[in-house]
Amino acid sequence: MVGNFGIDIGGTTVKIGYFVNDTLVDKFSIPTNRENNGSNIIKDIADTIKLYLCQNNIDVEQITGYGIGVPGTIVNNVATLSGNLGWVDYNVKDEFRKYINSNNIVIANDANAAAAGEYWALRNDVKNLVMITFGTGIGCGVIINGKVVEGVSGSAGELGHVPVVLENGEQCGCGNTGCLETVASAAGIVNEAKKALSNETRESVLRSISNLSAKEVFDAARDGDKLANELVEQLGKYVGVVFTIVAATVDPNVFIVGGGVSAAGDIFVNIIEKYYKRYALKSLKNVKFRIAKLGNDAGIYGAAYLVKNASNIQS
Amino acid sequence: MVGNFGIDIGGTTVKIGYFVNDTLVDKFSIPTNRENNGSNIIKDIADTIKLYLCQNNIDVEQITGYGIGVPGTIVNNVATLSGNLGWVDYNVKDEFRKYINSNNIVIANDANAAAAGEYWALRNDVKNLVMITFGTGIGCGVIINGKVVEGVSGSAGELGHVPVVLENGEQCGCGNTGCLETVASAAGIVNEAKKALSNETRESVLRSISNLSAKEVFDAARDGDKLANELVEQLGKYVGVVFTIVAATVDPNVFIVGGGVSAAGDIFVNIIEKYYKRYALKSLKNVKFRIAKLGNDAGIYGAAYLVKNASNIQS
Repeated sequence: MVGNFGIDIGGTTVKIGYFVNDTLVDKFSIPTNRENNGSNIIKDIADTIKLYLCQNNIDVEQITGYGIGVPGTIVNNVATLSGNLGWVDYNVKDEFRKYINSNNIVIANDANAAAAGEYWALRNDVKNLVMITFGTGIGCGVIINGKVVEGVSGSAGELGHVPVVLENGEQCGCGNTGCLETVASAAGIVNEAKKALSNETRESVLRSISNLSAKEVFDAARDGDKLANELVEQLGKYVGVVFTIVAATVDPNVFIVGGGVSAAGDIFVNIIEKYYKRYALKSLKNVKFRIAKLGNDAGIYGAAYLVKNASNIQS
Repeated sequence: MVGNFGIDIGGTTVKIGYFVNDTLVDKFSIPTNRENNGSNIIKDIADTIKLYLCQNNIDVEQITGYGIGVPGTIVNNVATLSGNLGWVDYNVKDEFRKYINSNNIVIANDANAAAAGEYWALRNDVKNLVMITFGTGIGCGVIINGKVVEGVSGSAGELGHVPVVLENGEQCGCGNTGCLETVASAAGIVNEAKKALSNETRESVLRSISNLSAKEVFDAARDGDKLANELVEQLGKYVGVVFTIVAATVDPNVFIVGGGVSAAGDIFVNIIEKYYKRYALKSLKNVKFRIAKLGNDAGIYGAAYLVKNASNIQS
């Protein structure tokens, strides 16, 4: 029995998956301890894994590697910045090796790891894949020729922070205004809806909802609410146009759409695809659009996939 | 003496470079014979090379490879479409091998080959590079980790055909409207200027020029003409925004700007960089902007570079 671990560090929870022959055989999670600039997170993970191995009579020598997805910019296994965890220029690989000595430890951005997971799920069918998750924020991973593109500053796939509202856009957490995240993250969709409701007097079922969510905007659009429909069309246009430029850059087989917002289902993906097809170059119109398959497990699958061959990450 | 050939097929001229140890030792060109769907082009090239080798007493066995840049979409050495040459699903590699039997023949899109040439010129300093040429059309090549990205349909880097004018844009040769090429190619810049001149009554030195060129728009802006300045600002905004999305996708070290329009010099690159910096994510603001170094020879340098290692092309 030879296995490896795929680990996905989130802002509140660390997910750990134990894989044997590409099969997820066990999955558990621990809280993310963000105290003291997250200095205990890696030790907590290592302790949990060591205990798991001991309790299951698995020799640590039988573990071929450890892949770790981190919410932040990663360059060569170093977290140059993870605002979420409190890490700055933090050598995650070296830190992990203090507790578990392995020659095969791979650190990746969490969105890149998720993209690698979805790539793994489709690996016989695709070479180039772009995955975008729409949730609290927007994450994206780009895979070319089966390899994650990390980027020279660890910022490949930062599509949440591309400009879509060029004048008078909303303030974004990144410091800029009008980023895709300000209109297409869960909060961005709600914010756009609230702005539309206060800027005009038209009737809309959205007016009667006190704690508006992105899902309710999609539901209202599906039920024929005109204002909600216009909001969804505008959202699709913002995202679809960005996707055409991404496709004209790396020409993928498929866009994978994931995250909480994509739980709205077909309506969200369909509206993106509609505007993508409207604006994309003919030879790029055949790119497929797919809802993510692995859900919240994409990160651990991808981390496990990446550690099987560290050369699956390229700058 | 061991050499290789870098070949750049253009719509009117084929450039052929003979390289020994990465040095261009000879360069010549022949007309591109587009008759009969370009069926003689490859034979013409092979004949020219064979004659050159004979006249210079070079044994064909000493030639390590032949790289060929083609204006069209290329997938695995096949020109799936070159409207310019009349090729459809044309196996350029097999065709060339009919005349010169070599195990090392590499076919690449011409813009990708040019990008590879500029990468070669900077190869010790960069890993990821995006080159865009603004001329009659707009061409682009994307290099990640030293490898040209071809794309699954041969369309990686087709940035001339991304949408920048989303409503009521000008008709583009690709069939869509409002593509970057309609506002930022040499003809696009002139067209935007003419539209502005006819849409308003302001004075401008551009009104006195009968055969307006892109260069004259830049010159007028440099001389303080207000209307020309606004045109250049709008152009910079269109291109700069596209560049931020390209950068957020692949996170390059450098953007290389080439082509006839870039002969306008600093003003063109500076205006692109201004808007790029305004909209780019903080971690991506340090991308360098450079004017292409190799001019019209980029294609032959790049073709020669790519043939030295065919693995320098990835899907």
